[in-house]
Amino acid sequence: MTKSVAAPQAKGKSAEDKIFGANNRATALAEQLGADKVINGTVGSILDEDGNLVMLDVVQKAYKALTPKEIVAYAPIQGYPDYLEAVIDQCFGESRPEGYIRACATSGGSGVLHHVIHNYSEWGDDILTSDWHWGAYNSMCTDNGRHLREFELIGPDGKFNLESFKANVTDMVAKQYNTVIIINSPANNPTGFALSSEDWDHVLAFLKDVVNGKDKNIILVSDVAYLDYSGEKQECRKFFKKFGNLPSNILVVVAYTCSKGFTMYGQRMGAMICVTSSKDVADEFVAINQYTSRATWSNSNSAAMKAMVNICKDPKKVAELDAERAEYLELIKERADLFMKEAKECGLKYLPYLSGFFITIPMEGSQKVCDLMEKEHIFLVPLGKGIRLAVCSVSKKKIAGLAAKIKAAVEATGAKQ
Amino acid sequence: MTKSVAAPQAKGKSAEDKIFGANNRATALAEQLGADKVINGTVGSILDEDGNLVMLDVVQKAYKALTPKEIVAYAPIQGYPDYLEAVIDQCFGESRPEGYIRACATSGGSGVLHHVIHNYSEWGDDILTSDWHWGAYNSMCTDNGRHLREFELIGPDGKFNLESFKANVTDMVAKQYNTVIIINSPANNPTGFALSSEDWDHVLAFLKDVVNGKDKNIILVSDVAYLDYSGEKQECRKFFKKFGNLPSNILVVVAYTCSKGFTMYGQRMGAMICVTSSKDVADEFVAINQYTSRATWSNSNSAAMKAMVNICKDPKKVAELDAERAEYLELIKERADLFMKEAKECGLKYLPYLSGFFITIPMEGSQKVCDLMEKEHIFLVPLGKGIRLAVCSVSKKKIAGLAAKIKAAVEATGAKQ
Repeated sequence: MTKSVAAPQAKGKSAEDKIFGANNRATALAEQLGADKVINGTVGSILDEDGNLVMLDVVQKAYKALTPKEIVAYAPIQGYPDYLEAVIDQCFGESRPEGYIRACATSGGSGVLHHVIHNYSEWGDDILTSDWHWGAYNSMCTDNGRHLREFELIGPDGKFNLESFKANVTDMVAKQYNTVIIINSPANNPTGFALSSEDWDHVLAFLKDVVNGKDKNIILVSDVAYLDYSGEKQECRKFFKKFGNLPSNILVVVAYTCSKGFTMYGQRMGAMICVTSSKDVADEFVAINQYTSRATWSNSNSAAMKAMVNICKDPKKVAELDAERAEYLELIKERADLFMKEAKECGLKYLPYLSGFFITIPMEGSQKVCDLMEKEHIFLVPLGKGIRLAVCSVSKKKIAGLAAKIKAAVEATGAKQ
Repeated sequence: MTKSVAAPQAKGKSAEDKIFGANNRATALAEQLGADKVINGTVGSILDEDGNLVMLDVVQKAYKALTPKEIVAYAPIQGYPDYLEAVIDQCFGESRPEGYIRACATSGGSGVLHHVIHNYSEWGDDILTSDWHWGAYNSMCTDNGRHLREFELIGPDGKFNLESFKANVTDMVAKQYNTVIIINSPANNPTGFALSSEDWDHVLAFLKDVVNGKDKNIILVSDVAYLDYSGEKQECRKFFKKFGNLPSNILVVVAYTCSKGFTMYGQRMGAMICVTSSKDVADEFVAINQYTSRATWSNSNSAAMKAMVNICKDPKKVAELDAERAEYLELIKERADLFMKEAKECGLKYLPYLSGFFITIPMEGSQKVCDLMEKEHIFLVPLGKGIRLAVCSVSKKKIAGLAAKIKAAVEATGAKQ
């Protein structure tokens, strides 16, 4: 018998990460054959047209300017006050919602989700998200004895499936004290889908109604990891305004990260930002999440916070940042447009993509298709109901012709679209 | 009534961190009066004789040499393989124990403790440590529904209190499936105490005996945060050898951190290293802890790992590192020796200090004494049963005369020593 000393609730946990696995194989093959011979569509980071990982110039300069103290001093557990201010400003832009807004530093967006699950749901609870979601949400729930439940994101009409959302929330509110809901929009990973302004109005009106007069709470997590590449700076932020003036038993937590917007992926820097109409709930938010930070990772990366602050306090640098982001937003759009155009031409279906790092090709039998593509040195991420293509990291040259190759592999393997 | 939307288990958590609180007051006063007018004995980082935070030269150079990719690329969840090798080598030196040794990257030493508590104990369990311990251990237990239980570290004879240790472990093993024990030695925070070679022999012989033939496990966490300032490099590591060849139901997890040894405090970089005689237990260690990392903070700080590796793979840089550490070990020793000499002269009791960042002055009534000292612009950390003085951060000039001032405050407040 296999020996084990893990606690009962921790026994048997393991995960082969399909994304890192495919990426490792792609990288190894590229070293062997040359990078031009391999298409690696697995990486969730921006690569330029030559295949190099992009670190924004303004961010590189900010890192070079850091003092030893800024790099290695212990930061306060909640985060440096100027970082927390900068984060709130960067996140909301001109669409800062009304209410009590507070922030706590976290380890990227992942850290936000961990803290929300840990502090706002109970062992055994369901956590709701859409069927199209980032795989790590599952690990976060499983590791903490929660169960990830899915509503259907996109209805048969290609629009947000409000009915599926309502049915799931209604059922959860009936059963649980708190209902934690994670909505990754705009630029949903893995589809590029987003809720429209009207979708948000319907969602929020429904949420108000469903807990009205009840001793039940909704914790709405707005995961905006890809926000800065989802459209014009102020336009794509307008939905944030809707988070103001909600009843006190609806707490909005925005999962903000510097990973994408500042290309600081490996620095592990993010923040959880609350929006609430109740001062008590805001105070509690800081108290319990700061407590959990102390008990989990202690303080956060000082250098990353200081680099971010040094950019944000200087309007010239912010302008430089915005210009660089706009450039990469445009590049990703060109890649995505090219893929979608060719997909239409060859009759390959894809899910409604508006913006973001990924496009999803829906199908049954994605693993077989990905396996076959790998023989042609093309690496994509197989999902339960489709294939994820990272348009953030594949050059236009390599995108050209890719839709037809996927279409051929779908037909060769008998996968159903 | 105060509004709350936290889950039941999370309600009411909050902590004013006494260490950060006192440090903030000291810093504010120093800005007002000048640094030479304030003694700040709260900071757990090395400050030089001029009061500046030390970042080792070799570490500064390693940071300057980092490439953009090294700074911002996503690292593997477990950590870069070369980092994990470097960590094991740096930790054990010439005293690598026999058995299966594996490592996972963590957010400092704090991250190690979080993962061990999360994966090797159950909700409701007791976790054992010594009465003299780092305050954050309490938060880590409380935040995860565990209870921190204390054995008496130092007996009336000034030596390790084996009997108290045995009694507590025996009781816990009778009641729990897993008994997690945290021993912070050498250079215990807050006392500077360490278990002797014989103490370790007695501890390990007893642990083997207490779970012999039982379906019960011991998880022994060896917290060595201050290892690199605890004595001659190879000499202070010799006890690690004893962790080899233990039965498979005793798992040793070394809590390793780059915070002190590499002065990378704010970079949040550490590792959990297992030592076990069972390959299954080692495989499980990586699987479940990697899983929890993915579900908690995702991957770790790429820059910090690469900076550490770039030093460790170059013997010249390691020699430079060792020389710098030896210099600060000597400086801290001189400060501690001066304090202890003066304490003896004025009859101020202190706990047996061998090495490390802190000296503890035991007493009842520590809060009153610290409050009085603050009026003289001297900031120390009040603990439940004493006062902690950070000899890592107070210059010799400021140490001179400090013991007598504390003695006077003890007498003025009527505190009992």
